[in-house]
Parts: sequence; C-alpha cells; structure tokens
Amino acid sequence: MIKNILIRENILGTNDQIARENQRILDNASIFSINVMASPGAGKTSLIERTVDRLKDIYSVAVVDGDLASSIDAERAAKAGARAFQINTGGACHLDAIMLNQALSQIPLNLIDLLIVENVGNLVCPINFMLGVHKSILIASIPEGDDKPYKYPNSYRNVDVVIVNKIDLLPYISFNVEYFRRGIELLNPGVTIIELSCQTGQGLENWFKWVEHECVSFHQSAL
Amino acid sequence: MIKNILIRENILGTNDQIARENQRILDNASIFSINVMASPGAGKTSLIERTVDRLKDIYSVAVVDGDLASSIDAERAAKAGARAFQINTGGACHLDAIMLNQALSQIPLNLIDLLIVENVGNLVCPINFMLGVHKSILIASIPEGDDKPYKYPNSYRNVDVVIVNKIDLLPYISFNVEYFRRGIELLNPGVTIIELSCQTGQGLENWFKWVEHECVSFHQSAL
Repeated sequence: MIKNILIRENILGTNDQIARENQRILDNASIFSINVMASPGAGKTSLIERTVDRLKDIYSVAVVDGDLASSIDAERAAKAGARAFQINTGGACHLDAIMLNQALSQIPLNLIDLLIVENVGNLVCPINFMLGVHKSILIASIPEGDDKPYKYPNSYRNVDVVIVNKIDLLPYISFNVEYFRRGIELLNPGVTIIELSCQTGQGLENWFKWVEHECVSFHQSAL
Repeated sequence: MIKNILIRENILGTNDQIARENQRILDNASIFSINVMASPGAGKTSLIERTVDRLKDIYSVAVVDGDLASSIDAERAAKAGARAFQINTGGACHLDAIMLNQALSQIPLNLIDLLIVENVGNLVCPINFMLGVHKSILIASIPEGDDKPYKYPNSYRNVDVVIVNKIDLLPYISFNVEYFRRGIELLNPGVTIIELSCQTGQGLENWFKWVEHECVSFHQSAL
C-alpha cells in the first residue's frame, strides 16, 4: 500500500514539475492557454471550432486535441482555422503535462497567441493532472442532467469557468437549472458560469468576451 | 518503465482473480448479473429505474451503484423497487472487482435473481476492469454525437449490448445514425444494438425482452 502511494506521489510530482515547465514555456512565448474538459459529447470540439472561427482574425490560435483514438477533433479545429495538433493517448483517460510538453515542442510557439487544449472526454480523470496552462474550463451540457455537480464534485470544484452548453435542448429535457446552479455554487462559489448553445449560437458572445478579456489581461501583464 | 508495467499487471491480475471469484459467487447463488457502463448522463440510472420497475414482479433485483460521490442513484434504484447498494469510489474513475466483492458481501444473495451494476459515469476507464458479471452493456445517447465509437473504441468493442438512448431527441440534434452504426459494426460485428428512449418509453420493450431472455437462459443453464 505504501509502495503504491509513493509511486502515485512520484507520478503526480513529476507531472506537476513538467506542468510548471510548460507554464514557463507558455509565459516566455506570451501564449495565453486554456484547458477544456468535459464528458464525451458535451461539446468541446464544437465550442473550440466556434472560438477559433471567431478569434482567428485577432489571434493566432493553436489547438492541441487529446483523444484515445482518431484525429477527428484536430481535423475539425484545423478546418476552423487553427494550427491543430492531435495527441492519441492510446488507452490513457486524460492528458498529462508530459504529453502537452511533447506537443509544445512541435508547435511554432513564436507564431501563437492563444493555445486551447482539448482534453480527453472524461468527467473524472483529467482534473487530477495539472498541465501548466493558465485557465481551466469545464463544459457541462443540458442532456447530461442537472445532478452532475453533486456526482462529479472535483471537476466542478477546480475550474475557472463552467460552460453550460446545449441550452437549445432545454424545452425537450427535464432539467432544473436552479438545482444545477446551486450545486456549482456550493462547490465553487462565484465561479463564472456561461450558458450557451454551440448549435444556435445563443450566449456564445459571453464566452468570446471572456476569452478576449483574459487574453488582453494576460498579454498586458506580460509586458 | 518495466517496474510500472509490472505493477499494472499485478493490479489487473489481482482484479481479474477477484472477478473470477465474484462470478463463482454469482453462479453459486444463481444470480444473473449485468454491468452497465456509459458516459455521465447517458441514462444509466434512468434505464435501471425503468428495468427494475418493469421486472420487479418477476425477479428480485439488486442494484449496485458506483459513483464518485452522493447516493442519488442508489436512492432512485431503491425507489423503483430494487435492493440498492451505493459504492462511493472517492476519486476512483471506475468500479473494480474488489469493490463489487465487498458489495456482494452485504447483499442477501439467496433472495436475489438479477443483479444490475451501475458503473461510474465514464466512457474510458470502466471497460478495463473485469467485475465478474455475466454481461456488459454500454449505453450511448444521441446528444453525445455520432462519432463516439470512433473516438472511444474500447468501450464499444468489449460489450454484449449497445443501447442507444434518447432517440426522442433525434429531431433536434444533428446525428447520422448510419455513420454511428457503421462505427459500432466495425468494432463489434453483430453486437446487439437497441435504440430506445427512457423518456418516452419507445423501444424499451426490446431491452426488457433481451434481459428476460438472458435471465431465463441463465437460470435454465444453471439447473
């Protein structure tokens, strides 16, 4: 048992050390960076597509996509106008700092202003692995149900923004918005919550504003 | 590296050994058992509620619910008429054979005909841990998107049935049923696919029939 715990600490210790190195690399290159996490199918790729499409004339955007298999997501990000890099994790259920570090070594950092990391679709594991990026985003979606903050507390507790996607489906699904928001507030008081639909576009402006505001703040403080 | 691989093999080796013990326990008690896996919010608890409600007059049903936190799911299964047992995994992203073994020790096995295990909501990790139950079910759902078999191949490859839930939402979501089914067929040729909606009840009869047929076959072969 002690042996297992030590190994786990070593793995996480090594991860955090490389995460700090990643952050130094990103800071030195003046790249604002976000980690997007969610259940499978909550809308990570759709939100990234819309974000790249909207911001590509202002910022040069790179997207790193983590998936067990396939390059479907990176192809979508590239089509939207990003420099896209696919990481296939094989069996691994999350991205870690080492994978991101390897991806960073392939990106022409001096040409990039904004890096979006799309984590593996998983509401449990990714939150446990620091990547060294500046902000963490969780995408929830209406069809997943209103009880998810209560059942997956860590993923709601340790993020900077909760996006609530697929609000266009609210008329067709039993979903108590008050109960859902109360769960988030208990875990992460005052966290930014943005309701939107990547399908209809409703609410997307609030998300773009958040990204732009954070990008500007980051680049100003880097001067 | 070699050390890590050995430890992983030891963990999985121990798990599989206890999984075989679980299956012996279930066989000896004549309990037909299924493991239900899915992404968060695909409808595991809803399907189990409907199944318990429908079959409780024919079979005595026990439900073991695995969640990171809360007892929401076990309460719902109990309300539907099952003997329900909640496992809180803490941080663990899956159920393993040891957790199920501990749960089995608390269940009055001689009173049970059918055991339904609701795994942690996660499309990546649970499939890697044998539990020792007789059949494995994956629930997909329309809002998750039609590309999931291609992105999470292991979870589609190693199951006996794929349920496609929330078909009532098809009119409101872009979902290519042909592309989705082709992905499943490539990974798991001939697997039973059942399309249904726990919300409207459409297609549920086909699922109930599958469970009843398997239950009868199991109990006949046990004679």
